[in-house]
Amino acid sequence: MNKKVAVILSGCGVYDGAEIHESVITLLRLDQRGAQVQCFAPNVTQHHVIDHLTGAEMPESRNVLTESARIARGQAKDARELRAEDFDALIVPGGFGAAKNLSDFAGKGADCSVQPDVLQAARSFAQAGKPIGLICIAPTLATQIFGEGVSCTIGNDAETAGALEKMGARHVECAVEDIVEDEQHKLVSTPAYMLAGSISEAASGINKLVDRILEMTVQEA
Amino acid sequence: MNKKVAVILSGCGVYDGAEIHESVITLLRLDQRGAQVQCFAPNVTQHHVIDHLTGAEMPESRNVLTESARIARGQAKDARELRAEDFDALIVPGGFGAAKNLSDFAGKGADCSVQPDVLQAARSFAQAGKPIGLICIAPTLATQIFGEGVSCTIGNDAETAGALEKMGARHVECAVEDIVEDEQHKLVSTPAYMLAGSISEAASGINKLVDRILEMTVQEA
Repeated sequence: MNKKVAVILSGCGVYDGAEIHESVITLLRLDQRGAQVQCFAPNVTQHHVIDHLTGAEMPESRNVLTESARIARGQAKDARELRAEDFDALIVPGGFGAAKNLSDFAGKGADCSVQPDVLQAARSFAQAGKPIGLICIAPTLATQIFGEGVSCTIGNDAETAGALEKMGARHVECAVEDIVEDEQHKLVSTPAYMLAGSISEAASGINKLVDRILEMTVQEA
Repeated sequence: MNKKVAVILSGCGVYDGAEIHESVITLLRLDQRGAQVQCFAPNVTQHHVIDHLTGAEMPESRNVLTESARIARGQAKDARELRAEDFDALIVPGGFGAAKNLSDFAGKGADCSVQPDVLQAARSFAQAGKPIGLICIAPTLATQIFGEGVSCTIGNDAETAGALEKMGARHVECAVEDIVEDEQHKLVSTPAYMLAGSISEAASGINKLVDRILEMTVQEA
């Protein structure tokens, strides 16, 4: 197959960065399916650092790219270097980092902005007609990437779905093991830990998303 | 099935903590096979903090338990609370954290000591005749848990294998997709990223290890 897929991470840890299980499941499935993977992350300071044991904010500062490199075993690049012409598809795992570091959705809801390097990179895929997969809370980036009218899912959380619709997206309810596909925009989304009660539940939807994204690149070729 | 398995993590990131891919693959396979999992880690300061992008040491201090909780989505407990009577098996993923935080093998080689809370917990499983799985570099803990004469693998790295033998272990060469089982001691080991060139190679051996560990608990029941 030998498809090239870019993965944008948002740190390392569900409460202040990329959700680790979702990220690793994405990397594992891509590799099992023969795709070449390169991880990216914005080279910016994390919104904050959360003690994952207590949930309390820590008096520390960490860099999103540096922490993302933990998940990528060192092989992470600055999102500024990410161009759609070098890849066949883009996938963004979830975790609060997607809503705190890739955008400020966690604080501002429907009035959020997407981090400029991430936005430019993701839009380059959309403009090139290359498929994008958004996992968990990452579909909150969708309207700024694709514009109003894009269809996606964050599962069935009414508040988040309401904010998505306020931004101009069409929210589609979706079970944890399933995906929602917007054929026109070549966007695939899955709820993962927005709904998952276990790591294997999260894997069921993510594996389906990865498989579908790879199928969509084959259709193009 | 409903077997209970304890997993000891050693931080969060291959160069100063638990190898994240190995840890998540272990948690995923255990969950897919229906096991109940609880993560533990020693409540101690990390040996050091490594910038995973550059490989340089960072002027920071992090706690092994707190960072391990990132992999466990907050659900990690102090290794002091780990008792074999509450579980059917124990698995320890690799990463440099296993040789820097769970022991000081990375600095002292064959003269290393195992962190006392980890050693006490692991020995309680050995004494109870409950199976233990050691992944990647974690078999460097084996002789202190089981005593001399224990058989295990770290793949085929001559220097590490030599240090293992110096400690009194019998090192068995092993391919990345395979496991080595010491039936007498109920110890299973696999090389994972000691040899793996990709995440799916690491998964092949880890999945086999998890499956074998769960089979061994069934034999006991």
